[in-house]
Formats: sequence, C-alpha cells, structure tokens
Amino acid sequence: MITLASDFGSPYPAAMKGVVLQRTDARLVDVAHDFPRQNVRAAAFWLREVLPYYPSATHLVVVDPGVGTDRNAIVVRAGEHALVGPDNGVLLPPARRLAVDDPLETYAIDETALETVEPTAPAEPTLDAPTGDGRSDEATGATDRRGPASNTFHGRDVFAPAAAAVHDAPLDDLDSLPFLTASEHEADLALPTATVATDRASGEVLVVDGFGNAITNVPGSFLADRQTIVANGEEVPVGETFAAVSPGQRLATVGSHGYVELDVNRGRGDEAFGLATGDEVVLEADGSRPS
Amino acid sequence: MITLASDFGSPYPAAMKGVVLQRTDARLVDVAHDFPRQNVRAAAFWLREVLPYYPSATHLVVVDPGVGTDRNAIVVRAGEHALVGPDNGVLLPPARRLAVDDPLETYAIDETALETVEPTAPAEPTLDAPTGDGRSDEATGATDRRGPASNTFHGRDVFAPAAAAVHDAPLDDLDSLPFLTASEHEADLALPTATVATDRASGEVLVVDGFGNAITNVPGSFLADRQTIVANGEEVPVGETFAAVSPGQRLATVGSHGYVELDVNRGRGDEAFGLATGDEVVLEADGSRPS
Amino acid sequence: MITLASDFGSPYPAAMKGVVLQRTDARLVDVAHDFPRQNVRAAAFWLREVLPYYPSATHLVVVDPGVGTDRNAIVVRAGEHALVGPDNGVLLPPARRLAVDDPLETYAIDETALETVEPTAPAEPTLDAPTGDGRSDEATGATDRRGPASNTFHGRDVFAPAAAAVHDAPLDDLDSLPFLTASEHEADLALPTATVATDRASGEVLVVDGFGNAITNVPGSFLADRQTIVANGEEVPVGETFAAVSPGQRLATVGSHGYVELDVNRGRGDEAFGLATGDEVVLEADGSRPS
Repeated sequence: MITLASDFGSPYPAAMKGVVLQRTDARLVDVAHDFPRQNVRAAAFWLREVLPYYPSATHLVVVDPGVGTDRNAIVVRAGEHALVGPDNGVLLPPARRLAVDDPLETYAIDETALETVEPTAPAEPTLDAPTGDGRSDEATGATDRRGPASNTFHGRDVFAPAAAAVHDAPLDDLDSLPFLTASEHEADLALPTATVATDRASGEVLVVDGFGNAITNVPGSFLADRQTIVANGEEVPVGETFAAVSPGQRLATVGSHGYVELDVNRGRGDEAFGLATGDEVVLEADGSRPS
Repeated sequence: MITLASDFGSPYPAAMKGVVLQRTDARLVDVAHDFPRQNVRAAAFWLREVLPYYPSATHLVVVDPGVGTDRNAIVVRAGEHALVGPDNGVLLPPARRLAVDDPLETYAIDETALETVEPTAPAEPTLDAPTGDGRSDEATGATDRRGPASNTFHGRDVFAPAAAAVHDAPLDDLDSLPFLTASEHEADLALPTATVATDRASGEVLVVDGFGNAITNVPGSFLADRQTIVANGEEVPVGETFAAVSPGQRLATVGSHGYVELDVNRGRGDEAFGLATGDEVVLEADGSRPS
Repeated sequence: MITLASDFGSPYPAAMKGVVLQRTDARLVDVAHDFPRQNVRAAAFWLREVLPYYPSATHLVVVDPGVGTDRNAIVVRAGEHALVGPDNGVLLPPARRLAVDDPLETYAIDETALETVEPTAPAEPTLDAPTGDGRSDEATGATDRRGPASNTFHGRDVFAPAAAAVHDAPLDDLDSLPFLTASEHEADLALPTATVATDRASGEVLVVDGFGNAITNVPGSFLADRQTIVANGEEVPVGETFAAVSPGQRLATVGSHGYVELDVNRGRGDEAFGLATGDEVVLEADGSRPS
C-alpha cells in the first residue's frame, strides 16, 4: 500500500500516480492533496494524526517549498512503515509516531541513480521560428539543463519513482536499493508544545480543520473536571461533545487527536474566536473547577 | 466494496480509510466528502441518487451533526446493500431506494462491543510543567474519559470498524456480528415532495450542484409538452438540454435524476434565479401548452 | 486500468464509478474532477501533460458543454491507450501525445446500442395530485422522452458504460464492440502555439495551476542562458527553481511540462503578473544575455 499526501491540489497528484502505477501495482490511497500550501508544519501535524491508523505502508509525502534547491530527498523507515519525501522536516513527526520505540532509519535518495521518469512521447516544445544564429542549440541546452528531473516537480520525477521502488523492496533491506544510501536527515521539525500549569495553559493553534475547529496544542487533560474555561480572555463552556452547547454556541472540547479544540456547535470556531493557524491561545481556569 | 461518503472535507476521511484497511482489503470508493456540512437532507438526496448505480456494497455514511450525543449508530441492510452510519435519518432515503421491494433490516451498533480502534503509538500529549498537586492524575482522567471512541470522530472510531466488519460478514447473517443487535431505527427522514396539479407545481430546491443547477423536487413530468413555464413569477424556456438555449441563458430542464432543474447554459442557475437549498419554487403553466 | 477526468466536481463522478464497477473490476484512478467548468482547452492541456505518465489504460474524459446536442460520443485509440469522451476536441491533444507515431483510430459510439444504464429501483417521481385529465399519461411521456440516456449526464449514461466495455475489449479489436463504428472525429482542438524569435516570444497563458503559476505556451528553451527577461513590459529574473528568488518575489522558470511559467516563490504568479487563462504574454530579451 502506498499513501499519497501533498499540497498539490489537482491534477498534479495524478501525474505522481501514473508514475507509481508504471512501476508497481500497489494499492494507492490518497491521504490529502489540499494541505495548506507549502506549510510543512500543518502537513506534519495531520500526517502524525492520520498515518498511525494505517497498516504497514509506504507514505509518499510532498510538501516541498524548497523543491529544486539542494535540500535532499530522503526515505525514513519507521517501524513497519516507510516515508518518502523532502528532507525539510515534514516526515519526522509522523515517523516518530509510527516507529513507536524503534529507531528511525534515514536514507538519502540519489536522484541520478533513479530510473528516469519518461512520459510517453515527451513534450518537445519546438520553436516556431528557428533562427540561423545557433539559437536552436541553445534551446536544446535549455531542455538539457532540466536533467533527469524537473526543477519544480520532484513529486513526479523523484519521490514517486522512489516510493514505488521502496514499496516493492523489503523494509529490512532498503539499502539494497541502488539509489539509497544510509544517511541522516538534515532538517527536523518538532511541533510546538504548550506550557501547561495547573490553572493556565499557553499554546497555539496548530491547524484549523475544514469545519473551522481551531485545534490547539494544549493537551485535552487541561479540560478535565472543568465546566468552563477562559480562552484568550473570554469565558467558554467545556463540553464533551459539540452538542453539549446549542447550535451556534462556542465551546472548548477535546478533539479526536487528544488536544483542546475551540469550536462552535454546527459553526466555525476559527471565526467565532478570531483564531488562525499559529495564533497564540491562553487557557485559564475561571474558578469553576471543583476544589 | 465499501463506499465512503461524508461532510468531512480533508484529511479526516483518510483516517477512516486507514481504520478500514487495517481490517479488510475491500475495494474503497469515495462517493463524496464535501457534502454540505451537517446537512443530513442534502446527503440523503445525493446518496439516494448515486448509490443505486453501484453493485452490491457496504456504504459508510457519516454526516453526523449529533456525534457524541445519545443518537445510535446503526447498520441498515437494504437488499444487496448495507449502509452504516448514524441514526439520524440520513441512511433511509438511499436504503429505501436500494432495497426496492425488500423490507429494510436495521441493527444497532453496540460501540463497546467493537474492537477498539488503536492508532500506532497513540497520541499522549504530556504536560510540560507537571505539578505536584495531583494535576497529572487528573490529566490521565481526562484521557480516560474519551473511552474507546472519541466524542467527536465516530467516523473513525465507530463507523469505520463497523463497516469493515459488515463488509466481511454475510449480508444474510449480520446479526452474527457480536456488536450488532436487530433493532429499529429511531430517526427517519423523508425528502419533501412537491404538490403538483395540472398547471401548477409547488416544491422546493433540494440541492444546488457544483454547476449551480438548482435541483427541485418537482417531477420532470411537469415539463412535458411545455415550451415555457413561469418559475417564481418569471417566464423561462423549457429545454431538453442545456444547449437548447444560448450560453448564459436560463432554462428549466429535467435533470439526470428526473426532477425539474432551474439552470443556466454554461452558467449558474442558482445565481440567475436567486435560489438556494430549501427555497420555495412555484412552477406555473403560462398558456403555451397545447390544448 | 480506467482513469477518470471531468469538470463535474462532486458527487457526479461517483455515479460514473458505480456504473463502471457494475460492469468491470478494473482499477479506477481519478485524474481530476475539478477541471475548469466546460473549458475544453484547459482539460486538453492537463490531460496531454498528465496521461503520458500512465501505463496502458482506458481514459474516461467528460468535459462536455455540448451534452445533449448532436455532438457524437467517441472512442479514440492512441497507441496502447484508449480515450472515451465527447467529440468536441478534448481527446485529441492527449491522444496525439499518447499515440507517439501510431495513427489515431476513431470510433463513434452508438448510444442506442449500449446496454441501458439502470439504477437499482430507478427514481419514479410521482404526482401528488394526479388529475383526471390525462395528466399522468403526459407525465409518463415526460419520463419516456429521456430515453435510454439522460440529456444532461452522458458521463453516467453513455461514457461510463462505454469505457467499461472498451477496457474489457482487446485494443486491437475495438470494432468488435457492437456499439462502436470506425469513424472520424468531427471536432478537433489544437492548443495554441507561441511565436518565438531569437529575442522575443509571443504566446498566451494556457492554464493557471492551483499554486497560481501562470503556465504559458512559450517553450522553456526561450529562457536558455538568460538571467532576466521582460515579461509584458516588466523585467523579471529567470530562475531554475522557485527558490532562485526570495519568497514573495516573481520569476520566470521552466515548468515541469517544459513551458515558461510566470511564478512567485511561495506566492501566486497569476496575481502578481495580473494574468489569467487565455491572456497574451510577450517575453523579450533585455540585453542581459551573453553575446
């Protein structure tokens, strides 16, 4: 099984799938292709929360604002899983969760050792008005400089063929793949943690989901036994479910990933609380807690 | 085959798919994950129109504004199909269509009898500043109260594992599944019907599709042999196809589901007619009909 | 393998998939269902760029502003691929690319020779107030006139069953299918080509992708060995990668399909350059080129 996740929207993921399906008949499962554009941290959060529900798989992850720079392409083995993507930190939070107590193993992808991705009848944009001054040679040069991989679409030209090969290789023997070298990752990413005391927690909004729920990094345990809290200065009821409050009303609850969310029952919490990804959140007890 | 439908957007459906794929290797087909948020009626309409084109399958449906309340989780067997979702009525309109003349069979899901959904290395948000006052015990309590299923994501924790088990069980023997009990559904939902007389039909907009077509509940037969009608007071040509009128022009036509639609050729009918889901629609003959 | 592409949004593609899966157990892969609405040229561009990365497959393509008119439904065999869709030109640019040096073979679909697409318990909207004046007969007439295929959803009623049958037939023997007749396509579509001289290229924006990159039809070779160009009168740096300029800065680069793109590093090129699909683009040398 190969899962695919990116910030590509459409139709770029379809090109990745074609490349993978040229090489393997693995089952493909889309995780998401609408991650916030070029937001490595939001992608890392969602992948850390979603991928642990999967059986052993190869996870192809392309959120890659540094495409075409000298950032490496890597494979991380994490327990029964392998992750393939850019060395910008996005793979680490999900990898640590997937590995449980196993050590992570990182491999660098040598792009030049990958079998070149060739479309059927590659595009050959030609010049309508070839000139006699050597321009056409220069044109050839321009094509050549793209080399085996485009500079802007490594999802298709590097990560997809690598993921197909990783999928078909034994997890215990990844360095048998000619394009992989045991290595270390260079970039890391730790999702920010909240500071939590007995009656005060200070954190931030990690992501806003499609319902408008503002998902913070404050552990859900902060809400234990409280009926209300004060969120950024405003009193808010604590509920175990959205329906604990009337439609349109605000609440704080423990989301499905275990963190405090600021939500509105059948409405958008981000708008009601005036919160966006990255905004600071301070939660305080308001005295309602049983002594 | 398991189809999946929800109002979750992304990436929550991917967590459901992981849970399903941990349990079965069924083919998965996405019906839609962008149903109007928490709109049970719109989801019921689309499912009633789309699912009858499928071969025998298990249909996982999660449009669930009452998640975490005491609404039941149910399975409805309908002919060669089974539907899994909340007992809020959303399953009934498609189930009745799929069952044809067979009686529906309903089963209640006992959430506590389901194998617990466990991610790899479940999230354990910890307190950065553990205190000496017993706070960390309370934190544990907060985690515990989430129980085997989250209060906010039954799609992942209840419906997905139930759907996987239903898929793998014989349709004629669903009550052999330890978590199912033959029962009755509590909530029902009937899509509203129009009142139709010879020269006047009064109904409403059931849904607006992505093209902006305003799909009403007036049977297409109302348009038979008419060249024009009066829709909410305005004369509109009747066409068998969008192309019966010029681009940008309004028309009434019979949609692919057999109902009258108010459309614009290569444009948006909802905007041109000033109509949204739930709005009243009165269609009248204008005398153009042959006597 | 059957790929699916349309401008349908959701959930109409799910009805197509059901119809296909009633008839074959082929692997289904979504290319995109959010192509710009009824924009045949944009769909043709994307399909030409994406489909060549696929192994041998049947490609179901429905971008069909003329649905219900007398435009034909066709199948085009292109090398190891078959394309199924409306005869409005959308199939030709990808077909020519997929065929490489093979001649294209075109077949007309006889809709009346296709096995009728029947949902389970087809919708039978009935009149709430049947009248004594023969109205109900007329109602039946209205249903009848929809014939074997709806007038508005040939994706479901014509192209999907045709694609399933084409997938299961030998590519070399397509005219053994009873609903196909060797024919010629009527509509064609050539994507516009740019006019390129040594120091000046005149073209247009073919599409804008989800990142806001304005993809032109000027061959990437025009940028060879240039450090800057003048795009529609404004000087712009040329970069091999987005990261060649600072975040928020504009650049011209060679996109993954080989054409000049006008982009912004981590931003939207269409907004920065004030460009939309179809807009004219003039690129000029600015003297920075080595002599």
